[in-house]
Amino acid sequence: MSDTTAERSESVQPSPDLDVAMAAAVKASPLLAATAPAERAVWLRAIADALDADADTLVPLAMSESHLPEQRLTGELVRTTFQLRLFAELLERGAYLEAAVDHADPTWGMGPRPDLRRVLRPLGVAAVYAASNFPFAFSVPGGDTAAAIAAGCPVVVKAHPAHPELSRAVASHIEGALRASGAPDGTFALVEGLQTGRDLVLHPDLTVATFTGSLRGGRALFDLAASRPTPIPFYGELGSVNPVFVTASAAAARAEEIATGFAGSMTLGVGQFCTKPGVLLVPRGAGIEPLVVDAVRASSGGVMLDDKIRDGFFSGLGTLADRSDVELLAGDPTSADVPTPTLYATDAAALLAHPHELLEEHFGPAALLVRYDSPDEAVAIANALEGQLTATVQSEEGDADAAALVSVLADKAGRVLWNGWPTGVTVSYAQQHGGPYPATTAPHFTSVGTASIARFLRPVAYQGVPDAVLPPSLQDANPWGIPRTVDGALLVE
Amino acid sequence: MSDTTAERSESVQPSPDLDVAMAAAVKASPLLAATAPAERAVWLRAIADALDADADTLVPLAMSESHLPEQRLTGELVRTTFQLRLFAELLERGAYLEAAVDHADPTWGMGPRPDLRRVLRPLGVAAVYAASNFPFAFSVPGGDTAAAIAAGCPVVVKAHPAHPELSRAVASHIEGALRASGAPDGTFALVEGLQTGRDLVLHPDLTVATFTGSLRGGRALFDLAASRPTPIPFYGELGSVNPVFVTASAAAARAEEIATGFAGSMTLGVGQFCTKPGVLLVPRGAGIEPLVVDAVRASSGGVMLDDKIRDGFFSGLGTLADRSDVELLAGDPTSADVPTPTLYATDAAALLAHPHELLEEHFGPAALLVRYDSPDEAVAIANALEGQLTATVQSEEGDADAAALVSVLADKAGRVLWNGWPTGVTVSYAQQHGGPYPATTAPHFTSVGTASIARFLRPVAYQGVPDAVLPPSLQDANPWGIPRTVDGALLVE
Repeated sequence: MSDTTAERSESVQPSPDLDVAMAAAVKASPLLAATAPAERAVWLRAIADALDADADTLVPLAMSESHLPEQRLTGELVRTTFQLRLFAELLERGAYLEAAVDHADPTWGMGPRPDLRRVLRPLGVAAVYAASNFPFAFSVPGGDTAAAIAAGCPVVVKAHPAHPELSRAVASHIEGALRASGAPDGTFALVEGLQTGRDLVLHPDLTVATFTGSLRGGRALFDLAASRPTPIPFYGELGSVNPVFVTASAAAARAEEIATGFAGSMTLGVGQFCTKPGVLLVPRGAGIEPLVVDAVRASSGGVMLDDKIRDGFFSGLGTLADRSDVELLAGDPTSADVPTPTLYATDAAALLAHPHELLEEHFGPAALLVRYDSPDEAVAIANALEGQLTATVQSEEGDADAAALVSVLADKAGRVLWNGWPTGVTVSYAQQHGGPYPATTAPHFTSVGTASIARFLRPVAYQGVPDAVLPPSLQDANPWGIPRTVDGALLVE
Repeated sequence: MSDTTAERSESVQPSPDLDVAMAAAVKASPLLAATAPAERAVWLRAIADALDADADTLVPLAMSESHLPEQRLTGELVRTTFQLRLFAELLERGAYLEAAVDHADPTWGMGPRPDLRRVLRPLGVAAVYAASNFPFAFSVPGGDTAAAIAAGCPVVVKAHPAHPELSRAVASHIEGALRASGAPDGTFALVEGLQTGRDLVLHPDLTVATFTGSLRGGRALFDLAASRPTPIPFYGELGSVNPVFVTASAAAARAEEIATGFAGSMTLGVGQFCTKPGVLLVPRGAGIEPLVVDAVRASSGGVMLDDKIRDGFFSGLGTLADRSDVELLAGDPTSADVPTPTLYATDAAALLAHPHELLEEHFGPAALLVRYDSPDEAVAIANALEGQLTATVQSEEGDADAAALVSVLADKAGRVLWNGWPTGVTVSYAQQHGGPYPATTAPHFTSVGTASIARFLRPVAYQGVPDAVLPPSLQDANPWGIPRTVDGALLVE
């Protein structure tokens, strides 16, 4: 993400709203923890229905505040309500609870074992920091909000200042849908303002926070979360350059297709995706470079999300343009209202000498082409990478160099793609949108897909507790019919 | 845990050993990541066999360095090698990999879905900070080491200075067993010294650290881990007072049994367990108090793990003894070589007025009895608790007050017990040894039981990657025969 999204000027005013929201959330917390997953599934579907029903108002509002086109925002709203309903389905399947039952065992190898049963339960009040670049899918009604409510955590969303009216309109729909479907008061609240955002992560009643945005803004909130008298988990998705490695076999077989695909992915949404491919590594002299230059020149820029992001984009390009080891291949790094797709180039040796400087993220339609001289050099670059959300290999089946690259890249990225493009993140069961720092602050977790619910849950074990006092997920009769690990073996009803 | 375990004076000397150990671990890391779980199962069993075979040397060595009795240490070694073998079994079952396969789906509700497959893979080089109070089970060959190697992470163990000779002897067995069973060089190393411990958590090649010890020492390492340019997950198990709530029904039915059970659990191992019940809440005037006093008076103290821990114990008692809202019921808070089991008392009102001061952990054979006046007051105390490893309810079946308590305590503790005692932590599939801060620094995770392997793993998704390039866990044929979530449904082979 861009380095500016969390730092724009916001009205700095004390927020009595925050105290009201937190007090209501604290009150709602045990009520939510006591609900059955199927009840929360009803709430999530009610939210999805309310948003879908008002698409004709919400999409134009999003267009006016984000400069994104209608088709993109219509699709993003579809994604967002699909996501809410997918979490509802997850709740009904029940495997996400990771229920485990160890029956008492007097012959257990280390000494008699008591009856022990473990299940996941909600952490408590959650903060969600909305992003600018997906005004629906990573903002107020986005994946973090859906996952937190699915888990049974009350949510306080910090609105992104780039789309305040849309945030308020969506919040009003969420509140209405929750009320109408029987969710406790305090299940959801929207707060605004930079200082409120800082106060929120330091609030003593907060138990977990999620964030999608810039490395600088995310790290600042991460540091605040860690500095608390009672530190809390902070799930920040901060940044990634999403390198794409083109092997010699692929450059020989599909140079034109790769050049076109790369330019399309790099300029999609005016390059304002955290999965935008920002670095393209090509074999030197393989003939693909001029095709990439042509494809980038042939693609379009567009108005960016707001002026602050645009200014940050051009200022970042300025630092690249000043370097003697970098040359401009396409585009114009001079500040303008509508940025041109811009391509720089450098050599693998320069990249290996200055990986930190040359692999900085540029949020917008710009990328760096890197010429490498051997498969070993490509592997050396892969090994020099910081943590990434994604890493891509463009190759041909049976190419042993590519298999070696995939293995190294799995150590660096949350998602490894083969002959695909990293933009367009599917919401599904096997999705992983995460990765080692600085891609995220918590490598165990994902912020997209059903597995993202785990960020809002923690395990509790019950020892020797009578069946009637146990939560239904752990009772002998398994009344919810959920998959459970029983005495070590995974059982599906 | 005690407030002193991580702060004793250790030889402060630069450690060239650390650089050697880290360099070897970095080299081993990709080799370990490429091994099959079944290979690592062989290594774990080899370590267990080597330790069992030398029990006659190791147990007396542990006795001489810890002052713990032979029977306890023999049992602890059984627990330790059982644990290593249980992780081997876990590796063979394969569910721990959480493999998920989403087949490509052109009809997916948010738009066509590519083939996506996710599996857990090792984080990289792990640091394990050993504890003093379990010289086997939470030290060099303990659960953290077992879980890290099981996950496929090379481990650098920071020895606890309370048992250096035992640490070295065990390390030598681990190294020999790993070598003999074919593990890569660098899979395991032992380092020593306070400064080395600090250098270790700041080492740029480290990816994860685990710690069992004092709140002060653990928080200091947590802060260092969070302060790194690249922060890493830090799993600290720091402290807990493990409250036990006795309801009126239990006090009426089983006062004598509860008094005896409590005194036994509180003084077990000279009270040097992180799960020692440090607070006993009883209904005022129910007649159980004098029985508890008698039972504590009738129990034995013992020599503590070392002089520093003993001094810390008496200094902690001093702060309690100075308070006007606390009275001494049994024992002698005056410094002595062998501490006496010591019981203080206070009222619920005082506890609710000063929860932080009165609920501080005292590592050793001491506890605080708290008189409460109503079930509502017991619930108020439960609500005032900080995060706990365990919380216990002593009650009778059908007691509605107890059911309400269990529900509140599940929000505060990692493990909730009914009519049991928190000491004696079973190693099993459903165990949860964790809890909200300050019990641990990471509430999602456990440091005991098979689920503790998750601390050393992170998910990676593969998008469109050819079958031959995928790890076996994700290949179409499922060659390891492991449980997988396929298109959202959990399938067991």
